[in-house]
Amino acid sequence: MHCVYCETGIEERGAEQVIDGPEAQHAARVKRLGPGDRLWLMDGRGVRAVGEVVEARRALRVRIVERGVQAEVRPRVEVWSATPKGPRVAELVEGLVQVGAASWTPMATKLGVVDPGEGKLARLERIVIESCKQAGRARLLELSEKRTLSEALAPGPGVRVVMADAGGGSYARAGDGSTVRLLIGPEGGFTEEERRLAQGAGATLARFGPMVMRIETAGVVAAGVVLNVEQ
Amino acid sequence: MHCVYCETGIEERGAEQVIDGPEAQHAARVKRLGPGDRLWLMDGRGVRAVGEVVEARRALRVRIVERGVQAEVRPRVEVWSATPKGPRVAELVEGLVQVGAASWTPMATKLGVVDPGEGKLARLERIVIESCKQAGRARLLELSEKRTLSEALAPGPGVRVVMADAGGGSYARAGDGSTVRLLIGPEGGFTEEERRLAQGAGATLARFGPMVMRIETAGVVAAGVVLNVEQ
Repeated sequence: MHCVYCETGIEERGAEQVIDGPEAQHAARVKRLGPGDRLWLMDGRGVRAVGEVVEARRALRVRIVERGVQAEVRPRVEVWSATPKGPRVAELVEGLVQVGAASWTPMATKLGVVDPGEGKLARLERIVIESCKQAGRARLLELSEKRTLSEALAPGPGVRVVMADAGGGSYARAGDGSTVRLLIGPEGGFTEEERRLAQGAGATLARFGPMVMRIETAGVVAAGVVLNVEQ
Repeated sequence: MHCVYCETGIEERGAEQVIDGPEAQHAARVKRLGPGDRLWLMDGRGVRAVGEVVEARRALRVRIVERGVQAEVRPRVEVWSATPKGPRVAELVEGLVQVGAASWTPMATKLGVVDPGEGKLARLERIVIESCKQAGRARLLELSEKRTLSEALAPGPGVRVVMADAGGGSYARAGDGSTVRLLIGPEGGFTEEERRLAQGAGATLARFGPMVMRIETAGVVAAGVVLNVEQ
């Protein structure tokens, strides 16, 4: 079923909603939705609805026939990582949406070489929305401004920090529902100093696989492992 | 450190090895390796060595200074999946190399639409080799011919078959060292009939995440979860 993103919100059940702009045009022209057809709506903040098309012209008029709130994924998994090169940052973000991570934060590290510019973050927002539609996800992956490793290591209460590192052991289940903040290093890995800094700040080192993984693979696999182990 | 694939094998420690063809030219011309430089060698069947360049002309003469066998990843994880579209099949194969899966088998399913042709499998072999070099992996990911779901469900002894499906529970650790064969469905998922067929054949249904994942994401994440949970 086709899915439409309604940033401004979704009406109550039984009410009519007007959708305009590119989302409406895509639904009407490309997907050829017409009166009587059903579609998904999501507001990016957890609300998900089924709508029935009443009219499809420049704008789409839709009657809301079902409406609910998608449960938040628990535990909340934040991925803080070095930025992959070129199209791989999109692969990372798409994978994090699908796997159920809560957020992605580009993180400055000693051996990291890529900086996501303003334009890139804007493009990534669009990719997040499209990925959420495909993944049946009603809550957008949060994208953050670039942060430092020191900021990563100073979380608020209820956050466990886990540094992905070949020198760590297997990821151990905490089962306490706390947020897990996963730190993923650049291609060259974390430096000895960064590792010491993390351990000094109380972070756990954990290994998520027997081989060297690229940033985007490590981020997605580590988030998947944490979510599955904590279930 | 640069890595070279030596399909025909790797000499004993202390011996000299001649490497020619594209691998030698790439090392000499692009990577500009010269006498005294060190590099990795791997034979794709588990042997890994460190070599020192003696001479770099059309061919590369290398003295083997260290040589060992990389342990096999346990448990052996076979991924059988529908074939992702276009460049995503390469993403899948690269991800499986990095995560430590043993093999990939394209699998025919009711709702699967893509067939990997002969040419595509040959290109994937090249991608496997390059990914293995990057991942520090000395044993190639095995690529298989296309198989059917019925074949997937009739394994030899010592193989547990696990079907990735939203209707299953969390993946449960077996801890018995048996091979895990993961079945990943196409975009439309497995049909009710395929699910019944799998359960009838003794396969377990398991869910690897809260959202809908594309084939390549599901395959890599599921393999990562199994390898981490079974550690």
